[in-house]
Amino acid sequence: MKALEAIRKCFIFSSLEEDQLSEVLNITKEKRFKKDKIIMQEGEKGDTMYLVVEGEVGVSKSLTMKFGDNDFRQTEKVLTSFKPEDHVVFGEMALIGQDNRSASIIARTDCLFLEINRSDFIKLIEAKPSLGVMILMRLSELLINRLKQSSQDIIRLTTALSIALSK
Amino acid sequence: MKALEAIRKCFIFSSLEEDQLSEVLNITKEKRFKKDKIIMQEGEKGDTMYLVVEGEVGVSKSLTMKFGDNDFRQTEKVLTSFKPEDHVVFGEMALIGQDNRSASIIARTDCLFLEINRSDFIKLIEAKPSLGVMILMRLSELLINRLKQSSQDIIRLTTALSIALSK
Repeated sequence: MKALEAIRKCFIFSSLEEDQLSEVLNITKEKRFKKDKIIMQEGEKGDTMYLVVEGEVGVSKSLTMKFGDNDFRQTEKVLTSFKPEDHVVFGEMALIGQDNRSASIIARTDCLFLEINRSDFIKLIEAKPSLGVMILMRLSELLINRLKQSSQDIIRLTTALSIALSK
Repeated sequence: MKALEAIRKCFIFSSLEEDQLSEVLNITKEKRFKKDKIIMQEGEKGDTMYLVVEGEVGVSKSLTMKFGDNDFRQTEKVLTSFKPEDHVVFGEMALIGQDNRSASIIARTDCLFLEINRSDFIKLIEAKPSLGVMILMRLSELLINRLKQSSQDIIRLTTALSIALSK
């Protein structure tokens, strides 16, 4: 029940009807992770997407920062943390093609996830293309929103860099 | 013939069969633009995608740069230009939802484009969901590749900014 609820609340499945949600549930596997377990490692290849059902996860990304002359360090920047009520998915790009994980995900508490792998997803959307169109439209929307956010970040960083360099 | 060829070579339609390409051709409209005509203005709302069939287009984006004390200027950065053989599409995000154009597009020569609007596209993929899945998979792939490029840019800019600020 909790699993179906997690799927229903997930943005990329949010336009589906009840019977279509069950089709998605059929291709998920429950996965439990202990507190402090690394679920995804930035840069690793992956072909699975996860939905958080129980527990809290942290997202981090490594950055090269300059701390002094010739002192460049690879730092781990903690981006944010998510709880099930955030209805966030991880690794959804892996549903389309092999994903080089863009961030690391760590279990902040014991966690219960639903896992969907690419080959099961592709089989489902080929067998049920109407369902496929609905999911892929939402996935595209999600990607577009992220792309817009990234473009804003690039503009802000470029402006900040031009200010820093003009001093 | 040139129109069908432009569709066939376009990445988001590249997994379609011949009869499916004709279905896409049916929802396109030919549009001619004179040299120097602005085809899309950054920030404007739009619900159309374009494929270049003939001619050359330029892409530009405005940026705020600092030229001196209190001298901030909005500059127009020319990003790149495209010819038909690049098989590039513009405004493809408009197929999914209303698009705030992320860059300006100008005709560098007289141009012939194919235009597809969102409502015709949605009707087509709802009527032919198998075709829809194929297009949306490629569109998602395209968006993911752009998102990865943007993430790389953000990392590079953040590193450059940390260097500039540490001086």
